[in-house]
Amino acid sequence: MLLSELIQRRDKIRDLMFKEGIDAALIATNVNLIYTYGQVVSGYLYLPLHAPARLFVKRPASLTGEHIHPIRKPEQLPELLAQCGLPLPTRLMLEGDELSFSEYQRLAACFPNAEVLPCGSRLIRQARSVKTLWEMETFRRSAQAHAAAYSVIPQLYQSGMSDVQLSIEVERAMRQQGCLGIFRVFGQSMEIFMGSVLSGDNAQEASPYDFALGGKGVDGSIPGGACGRTIAQGESVMVDMGGNFFGYMCDMSRVFSVGKLSQQAYDAHQCCLDIQEEVAVAAKPGISCESLYQLAIDRVTKAGFADCFMGTKQQAKFIGHGIGLEINEAPVLAPRIKQELEPGMVFALEPKIVVPGVGPVGIENSWAVTVDGVEKLTTAPEEIIDLLGD
Amino acid sequence: MLLSELIQRRDKIRDLMFKEGIDAALIATNVNLIYTYGQVVSGYLYLPLHAPARLFVKRPASLTGEHIHPIRKPEQLPELLAQCGLPLPTRLMLEGDELSFSEYQRLAACFPNAEVLPCGSRLIRQARSVKTLWEMETFRRSAQAHAAAYSVIPQLYQSGMSDVQLSIEVERAMRQQGCLGIFRVFGQSMEIFMGSVLSGDNAQEASPYDFALGGKGVDGSIPGGACGRTIAQGESVMVDMGGNFFGYMCDMSRVFSVGKLSQQAYDAHQCCLDIQEEVAVAAKPGISCESLYQLAIDRVTKAGFADCFMGTKQQAKFIGHGIGLEINEAPVLAPRIKQELEPGMVFALEPKIVVPGVGPVGIENSWAVTVDGVEKLTTAPEEIIDLLGD
Repeated sequence: MLLSELIQRRDKIRDLMFKEGIDAALIATNVNLIYTYGQVVSGYLYLPLHAPARLFVKRPASLTGEHIHPIRKPEQLPELLAQCGLPLPTRLMLEGDELSFSEYQRLAACFPNAEVLPCGSRLIRQARSVKTLWEMETFRRSAQAHAAAYSVIPQLYQSGMSDVQLSIEVERAMRQQGCLGIFRVFGQSMEIFMGSVLSGDNAQEASPYDFALGGKGVDGSIPGGACGRTIAQGESVMVDMGGNFFGYMCDMSRVFSVGKLSQQAYDAHQCCLDIQEEVAVAAKPGISCESLYQLAIDRVTKAGFADCFMGTKQQAKFIGHGIGLEINEAPVLAPRIKQELEPGMVFALEPKIVVPGVGPVGIENSWAVTVDGVEKLTTAPEEIIDLLGD
Repeated sequence: MLLSELIQRRDKIRDLMFKEGIDAALIATNVNLIYTYGQVVSGYLYLPLHAPARLFVKRPASLTGEHIHPIRKPEQLPELLAQCGLPLPTRLMLEGDELSFSEYQRLAACFPNAEVLPCGSRLIRQARSVKTLWEMETFRRSAQAHAAAYSVIPQLYQSGMSDVQLSIEVERAMRQQGCLGIFRVFGQSMEIFMGSVLSGDNAQEASPYDFALGGKGVDGSIPGGACGRTIAQGESVMVDMGGNFFGYMCDMSRVFSVGKLSQQAYDAHQCCLDIQEEVAVAAKPGISCESLYQLAIDRVTKAGFADCFMGTKQQAKFIGHGIGLEINEAPVLAPRIKQELEPGMVFALEPKIVVPGVGPVGIENSWAVTVDGVEKLTTAPEEIIDLLGD
């Protein structure tokens, strides 16, 4: 990655640090190392407000270069900073929402004279919420690969398949298109494998997480997604995989059917497409997240599907979420979120309805906020595709 | 899962709490919820020393039963405990190595009059290091499924395949055998997808982590494993996938070749098998981890492969590691680890040698410690299998 790209990102973080009177950040989590250094290493990126960033690296030891220094343990940091001619920080931010308590305490103890603040996660997430041009271009490539993987789904289906069997074939298609597989989520508890394939009434099963839809899963150790049930005639199946192709978590859902569905299911699907259309037309810089959410609620209520919007037994209270290096970034399109869209934000919009006895319908695409509207990144047919052919 | 099994596990934790004068644990991380409650939920398991455990659950809201209470936010805990007739804790342990700093602070603040200790991670990991009979049986089933997935690898190979292409097919075979996919590691930074497939000199690439071998990977956002190189004639390829079939991370590596390898590679492979044999004969309750490590080092040094044992440019300083709900549990077979093996421990033993110009050779199996020795769980052919046939 070009150093100029990294400097641009670091400067976005510095701007936010400056506003809060913070003179240095110590960055130690994978996602934020990818953001500020371009790759995962074992070590620390030290980001002073008024000097170039320094990488202190434990592994790989082979990593060398300007402003890269080997380190064995964080307790060496003050001495190493002194050797670099850098002053010790007075107000230092750490990634308090991501570092473990023990690791945070250990890093904070290295700087006994500094005021140590846990706001690193919040500030860096804020910086990350508006993408650079390079990030936007990477998202675009990710979205194309994601759509390409989905295009072969009709060929992957075989009569009598279970949801797990179909999921395995879709996972393979994603990997063949270059998906890295790893699914990154902010918040250590929200584990998921590569995404979810939900069919029939399994889409009604409540998740432990604030996901759009749940699913029972096949084992209590990872509840969510496909559960091993055969996808029956007259049922729908929704494919919602995480499209991590170049580190960026593109998000996209498409619905398939085994034979013809009930008319109600097609009506519900059309309602979701209408919501998408209405939100996409309204979405532009300056509009608040809560107002976009309200548009969706008004529309789905009028259509009579409010009871099964975003789930039935447990309904998710959002219709979209920012995406980036993690699947759940800012902004969140949800009630009471007054945050406004800004050019460069990227979000997934996912109005979904669960039709009892049939399964999930609806749509999810990834969208980029432009200077005067939004642009769909994940372009692919949006109707329900019959896996049995026409 | 039977309540008696869960009570047995909770009592193992209580024994350790008692020794440290701790009267309650608040458990909030997925792995420890699986251990103490049998499944992942969003919520908290409160484990008092002298009363039954209580589950306070946010999601799924549908979860009900004896000793299960709905909760919206952790600040309700003191009031809910009072409603259960439980006293507030005086010395409370939290999972300090796993909870984020912010979450830890929030939970600790709910109990202003308690002494809050971060030792929950350490104590529960200690309890988890000795498996119950149910866990051992689950490991056995996991190992069988793991071996079954590996048995089809020769059929998956096609001439001219890249390491990534082979990895994708092996991942699919693992999933078809029931692998849950998700790869759980203790320590939030050690990310890996399902495992690694390393061929040729890619096995020399240093990892950011303390893995047995590294690999460049295909993207800096997840450095490790296959890198997209074609597996050439005369090269070896090592398959080392995480075998999470029922929540338990079985571990197993096997080596394949494309055509015939150099004699040195076969000699190095035999050296690893000899190390495995020697360590397995010596391993039994009461023997220290460091002494098993030393056996391996002595043997590999005598054989002349010390320079390429467990890597070349960056050598891992262990030959094995405990496994369980996570891939890296206690005990660790490494220098200066005086911990002794105990019946019920399960560990992976992985002597590996990288032969420059050829690739990785060696072996990895999962072993259970019995009352008087060890038992191999992952039984499958251990020679280098030629993917081109004989």
